[in-house]
Amino acid sequence: MQYPKPITKLIESFAKLPGIGHKTAERLAFYVISDMKDDDATKFARALIDSKRELFECKACAFITDTNPCSICSDSGRDQSIIAVVETSKDVLSLEKMQSYRGRYHVLGGVLSPLDGIGPEDIGIATLIERLKDEDVQEIILALGATLEGDATSQYLAKLLKGTGIRITRIARGLEMGRSIDYADEVTLIRALEGRVEL
Amino acid sequence: MQYPKPITKLIESFAKLPGIGHKTAERLAFYVISDMKDDDATKFARALIDSKRELFECKACAFITDTNPCSICSDSGRDQSIIAVVETSKDVLSLEKMQSYRGRYHVLGGVLSPLDGIGPEDIGIATLIERLKDEDVQEIILALGATLEGDATSQYLAKLLKGTGIRITRIARGLEMGRSIDYADEVTLIRALEGRVEL
Repeated sequence: MQYPKPITKLIESFAKLPGIGHKTAERLAFYVISDMKDDDATKFARALIDSKRELFECKACAFITDTNPCSICSDSGRDQSIIAVVETSKDVLSLEKMQSYRGRYHVLGGVLSPLDGIGPEDIGIATLIERLKDEDVQEIILALGATLEGDATSQYLAKLLKGTGIRITRIARGLEMGRSIDYADEVTLIRALEGRVEL
Repeated sequence: MQYPKPITKLIESFAKLPGIGHKTAERLAFYVISDMKDDDATKFARALIDSKRELFECKACAFITDTNPCSICSDSGRDQSIIAVVETSKDVLSLEKMQSYRGRYHVLGGVLSPLDGIGPEDIGIATLIERLKDEDVQEIILALGATLEGDATSQYLAKLLKGTGIRITRIARGLEMGRSIDYADEVTLIRALEGRVEL
């Protein structure tokens, strides 16, 4: 017996998500089919479409946004002189949840990883350098994960920005080694931000 | 900082799924936004819509289907004299995966659960009785989970069908207690089916 086609397709879609195996995908598909309200399924479908159609990268900081520039870049109440460099948009949200950082961000969209063939030209380094020409930035906080790649990227940026007169700091080793930004708890993030050191 | 609305909506939709907490919902939403191909997101949305629009319950057995009667009921190669009574459509698929049962099914859509206010009139018992008037059924296999509610439902049906002349069996206690049908492995299901006992 084959599954009816609409079931198969829904299971396949769920199984494409990270961390969702075939068994879980079946479970989620049957939940949608048997227990989810029609209205909620429609909203879910709409949310998927809209998330791809209405979101894009802020032209200034590359944060995922539905306005250009994003709500952070266009907030005049924020400190224009500090930029926190992060790997992903999700990291921005993790840092924002602390409600203690009041500067702006620059989303690299990745970290240097020679083994994966990711070099300086593959992440948002050129756009960062470009920003620094136009904006009066006093400090750049490197807020990358405490991983080999995060460290290598921090070192690369520190070297690249040496001589610009901009203060380059790195968030402190409040992060456990190997931990990525978006899994860290808020207190750890606050400690890490407070204990940032000169590079 | 608020999340852009399309992100919030997508996170909320994922968080409505069973077993998906807020943190996982965020993770899945960002995967869709940052890493999923537009085409795959569109397919996912389409699969959600179609699963609600194109699927319905088979008028005979209540299995989730996109044809009426379903592919199992309309398969003349299957043994018309045996009906396996199951709780959900997912249980049908679990039993079908064994490829050893060749009868048909009846999906109750639930089991008796007085504590949850679920009585005989809330599950597909009347439709089962109705079928038996028209179809030449020799045996009914009660293939419900080995739970208190599953047992109570089996007992109820055995009592109700007594005197119809139909052989009433229950799948054997190859199922571990508390285990639902759709989590059992295939060998356990085969053993359980082979070892069914007269009620």
